[in-house]
Amino acid sequence: MQKQYAVIGLGRFGSSIASTLFEAGNEVLGIDINEERVEEFKDCVTHAIVADSTEEEALKAIGIQDFDEVIVAIGNDIQSSILTVLVLKEMGIKKVIAKALSKRHGQVLQKLGADWVVFPERDMGERVAHHLMSPNVLDFIELAKDYSIEEVKVPISMVGKSLKELDLRAKFNLSVIAINSRGNIHISPHPDQMIKEDDVLVVIGRNEDLKRFANLK
Amino acid sequence: MQKQYAVIGLGRFGSSIASTLFEAGNEVLGIDINEERVEEFKDCVTHAIVADSTEEEALKAIGIQDFDEVIVAIGNDIQSSILTVLVLKEMGIKKVIAKALSKRHGQVLQKLGADWVVFPERDMGERVAHHLMSPNVLDFIELAKDYSIEEVKVPISMVGKSLKELDLRAKFNLSVIAINSRGNIHISPHPDQMIKEDDVLVVIGRNEDLKRFANLK
Ligand SMILES: Nc1ncnc2c1ncn2[C@@H]1O[C@H](COP(=O)(O)OP(=O)(O)OP(=O)(O)O)[C@@H](O)[C@H]1O
Ligand SMILES: Nc1ncnc2c1ncn2[C@@H]1O[C@H](COP(=O)(O)OP(=O)(O)OP(=O)(O)O)[C@@H](O)[C@H]1O
Ligand SMILES: [Ca+2]
Ligand SMILES: [Ca+2]
Ligand SMILES: [Ca+2]
Ligand SMILES: [Ca+2]
Repeated sequence: MQKQYAVIGLGRFGSSIASTLFEAGNEVLGIDINEERVEEFKDCVTHAIVADSTEEEALKAIGIQDFDEVIVAIGNDIQSSILTVLVLKEMGIKKVIAKALSKRHGQVLQKLGADWVVFPERDMGERVAHHLMSPNVLDFIELAKDYSIEEVKVPISMVGKSLKELDLRAKFNLSVIAINSRGNIHISPHPDQMIKEDDVLVVIGRNEDLKRFANLK
Repeated sequence: MQKQYAVIGLGRFGSSIASTLFEAGNEVLGIDINEERVEEFKDCVTHAIVADSTEEEALKAIGIQDFDEVIVAIGNDIQSSILTVLVLKEMGIKKVIAKALSKRHGQVLQKLGADWVVFPERDMGERVAHHLMSPNVLDFIELAKDYSIEEVKVPISMVGKSLKELDLRAKFNLSVIAINSRGNIHISPHPDQMIKEDDVLVVIGRNEDLKRFANLK
């Protein structure tokens, strides 16, 4: 199931995508206008090439048409990001993923046909802010507007009690999906299971109920 | 439960953190050396101030000691990022969260006492790469080294079948935690529940089993 990806722009975001795809066994072409960047990342991808992606001829010479998915991870040079997406979609690349710096930039990329626009700094900023507000929540998935799954460090007050005693269903309207006890995952844990120090509960429910639970001491 | 946060550096990452915290009702002080940035974000935070965070006197004049949590979201100017973390920890700020550009940069920040070092572009790059490799996986939580929860779009071949017929437990060793049917969340769904088009299954299990399931057509 390995695929061919091209990543244009080997900044922090682009190089992270490129090396993650490559380490998972995919064929990855890395492209950057900056020779030093290409040199730095040449061992983290299948091929690394110096080219200006705003030049259609250069992209053709590389054979970019043969790639099903191209990631445009150019940042500060908004004009180059826009031109590159335009050229790629005109060349008929099926799936173009592009990084945007601002809402306006993202709108332009979408109008030009970008298939997925990503705002890495904005999205990561939101994740970090959530974590600061709820330090006991290690990770979460937003399922719908008001439902989530959260991975929550148990408050000290719960240590030594069984799930039955805690009865999160009655008290918080939450279901316990799993317990992570120092790396051992117990799926659909038994009601008699005791909570230990450093246990992490995986719970599902409404955001308001999750918030009450995650703020317990 | 509202807290006081200071965010130093109102680039894309810092401004996203600041406005998310502020919109959730927290008191947020935004600081940037660049007057235009401060002007741009002054309505997205409680207060916005122009200051050079590498100058201890400037930080003292602002009253930064009164903040329990300070986020250092300075990017390209690595020297300023390092100096700022140093000054903040010397001033006794309890919790300093700092953005790092590279592994080396992160190590330095940690040695200087940063309480949490974040690599926004790298982490978001990894998330995007995962999504490209498994387009049916909308979101995921890594619970342990080899266990995850994934939100997976159902393959067309499953539409019109019941959970009992699919028997993901027997066939994939996966448990279905919930079904998201166009925004309606069914937690611990009944075995007779029918899979509809556009349904999203929330499943828990080993990464290898999840991968097999998420790659079904
Ligand atoms: N026309 C172009 N063709 C190819 N590469 C380009 C072009 N313009 C810019 N790049 C490259 O894109 C990369 C990312 O750009 P830049 O560093 O400005 O963005 P950034 O938003 O700071 O990135 P990040 O936050 O991911 O580090 C750089 O390595 C740059 O050389
Ligand atoms: N000494 C300093 N004091 C206060 N603010 C500073 C200082 N040095 C830099 N900044 C501010 O930090 C902000 C973020 O820095 P910069 O844009 O270089 O990083 P970046 O990694 O490209 O950020 P992002 O990717 O989040 O947009 C800028 O608005 C900059 O003015
Ligand atoms: Ca950046
Ligand atoms: Ca989601
Ligand atoms: Ca930058
Ligand atoms: Ca996790």
